[in-house]
Amino acid sequence: MKALRWYGQKDVRIEDVPEPSPGAGEVKVKVKWCGICASDVHEYTSGPLFIPTKKPHPLTGRKAPIILGHEFSGEVVETGSQVKSISVGDKVAVRPTIPCYECHWCRSGRHILCARLATLGLGADGGFAEFVIAPEDCIYRLPGQVSYEIGTFCEPTAVAIHACRKAMVSPGDTTAVVGCGAIGLLVVQATRATGASTVYAIEPNARRRSLAEKLGATVTFDPDRMDAGREIAKLTDGLRVDVAFECAGVPAAMLTALSVTGRGGKIIEVGQMMEPCEFPFQRLFCHDKSIIASQGYENEFPTAISFLSESRVICEPLITVKIKLDNIIEQGIKVLTSERKGEHIRILVSPVS
Amino acid sequence: MKALRWYGQKDVRIEDVPEPSPGAGEVKVKVKWCGICASDVHEYTSGPLFIPTKKPHPLTGRKAPIILGHEFSGEVVETGSQVKSISVGDKVAVRPTIPCYECHWCRSGRHILCARLATLGLGADGGFAEFVIAPEDCIYRLPGQVSYEIGTFCEPTAVAIHACRKAMVSPGDTTAVVGCGAIGLLVVQATRATGASTVYAIEPNARRRSLAEKLGATVTFDPDRMDAGREIAKLTDGLRVDVAFECAGVPAAMLTALSVTGRGGKIIEVGQMMEPCEFPFQRLFCHDKSIIASQGYENEFPTAISFLSESRVICEPLITVKIKLDNIIEQGIKVLTSERKGEHIRILVSPVS
Repeated sequence: MKALRWYGQKDVRIEDVPEPSPGAGEVKVKVKWCGICASDVHEYTSGPLFIPTKKPHPLTGRKAPIILGHEFSGEVVETGSQVKSISVGDKVAVRPTIPCYECHWCRSGRHILCARLATLGLGADGGFAEFVIAPEDCIYRLPGQVSYEIGTFCEPTAVAIHACRKAMVSPGDTTAVVGCGAIGLLVVQATRATGASTVYAIEPNARRRSLAEKLGATVTFDPDRMDAGREIAKLTDGLRVDVAFECAGVPAAMLTALSVTGRGGKIIEVGQMMEPCEFPFQRLFCHDKSIIASQGYENEFPTAISFLSESRVICEPLITVKIKLDNIIEQGIKVLTSERKGEHIRILVSPVS
Repeated sequence: MKALRWYGQKDVRIEDVPEPSPGAGEVKVKVKWCGICASDVHEYTSGPLFIPTKKPHPLTGRKAPIILGHEFSGEVVETGSQVKSISVGDKVAVRPTIPCYECHWCRSGRHILCARLATLGLGADGGFAEFVIAPEDCIYRLPGQVSYEIGTFCEPTAVAIHACRKAMVSPGDTTAVVGCGAIGLLVVQATRATGASTVYAIEPNARRRSLAEKLGATVTFDPDRMDAGREIAKLTDGLRVDVAFECAGVPAAMLTALSVTGRGGKIIEVGQMMEPCEFPFQRLFCHDKSIIASQGYENEFPTAISFLSESRVICEPLITVKIKLDNIIEQGIKVLTSERKGEHIRILVSPVS
């Protein structure tokens, strides 16, 4: 079958690889669509970050080359022995994370902390391929009204919902989202669906700001042209926001998140920040704020599916182009590492030629 | 009466000032002992930090010169009209914080966030004097077994208990305390009293390490001689600690706190950090950690008094010298800004000549 494999930094290849078969407790999924996530691009430009290259992955035994892609949906075409809850023909989304279920963290119900956590598309073969094998407990049936395209958003929507849960967003909270890429735009919607009264969105790209407004942001700000902290202070009678989500992964966004949060406020770190940030902890201290990292998700796939099926989170406008797997390098990955990356939110990839 | 007044950076003076009288709802306390806190020293070396110098304090109407001192105990000698719960002769500790009780934060029960919060000894006259005036709700009666000397520790003990509450220390948690000055040594004890199973203490000063061990630290580490993160990883089967308290207020301590916490761990910022810290947020993100600022206290004075009266927190070993108010500049403040400061934990000051 055709697949996109990661070999090393700036070395990904479309190759023909053997079609995999499901073992006991595993399900074989024919991939319909798979989104290109910023993590895929990070792994291409700056990796290896999560892909094992020297030692095999402790849970899956796999190392590079690995098939990328972890935001995907598809149709079940085969089930291994012992699979009970899933049937051939099911329309499904796949949770790419596989915890060990044995370590201290798994026993504490904190699967995202599992030291041996494997992710399809990073620590095992993922969704930029014609077929994927996943354990039964990673498979979630999609209701009729959720299309295969929208099904690829279960994963990033779970990220956004997990961030809201870690923030403990409360009814009436005022929130801010710093950075309106796919995750930021999903957080704008998830925070509203979780009871926030007002959502400010801060994003330099005009098209993304306009999208944020369409998807529920109360007011948007261009951080290159105005001091969002000062503007939000004016709009909130000096209280600023209860929760700010840092979804850009750059030091300037973290400092913006600090300045827009009010006394006792929470900053939720959702973006991956590759460089250190010169951070004034005294300002965190003086106003009794917190910074809470929110990586991935745990048991948020069911909520993500429910939010998507009820249109509490809308993803159609996030799909900026659909391409074929044959063209993923030129029309996908290279575009997202070029100056044109700002034009895109999510590029969906189909393995059909 | 005699008092120590702050006039400006490195300008504090022993002066004779008019003896104050209690207004309606106020209590006059004859000060027995008042501890010198690191904040007093900060205000001397680097102030004004909290003392108003230009505009009067919005709640008290006061500005410099201000009588310093906010960790004190004394005897009630007069009560103003409307005072009902406190009587002349009562042995008391005084909570120095006065919230406005009117703002958004006070109405939400978050008094420490009050934008007009006043603190006796910073925004109004404090305890380095023969007498202090405080509102009735700041006055807490001390039980018989708590001496006036120990009564001065209600305030820093409330800081330590508040930090444990913000950390939500749970039974069986493994904790670490980075920096064993007075607050660090109180956090070592408060975290044990709150159910922590193991408390690691990290402190370069040998005398303070030994004190930490006496007061309940399980193992202590000299950060100048060993990598505490690596050592604690060895002792905890790689899990490291659930909660690390940063009680030193320097960037190196924050980075140590990051390295000793395990996956999902919490860093509680208790120290005031005057300089920015180059912080690797990616490490916070990858292991889903949090940084929670814990400033001051809210309603922790009753718990502090109970912990002190039951000897769940022991403070006698923290008193390194007792001096007279006449000598506070030479024997107190100047010592704590000299190379000899490491010899001291708490210097107690008596206004009796």
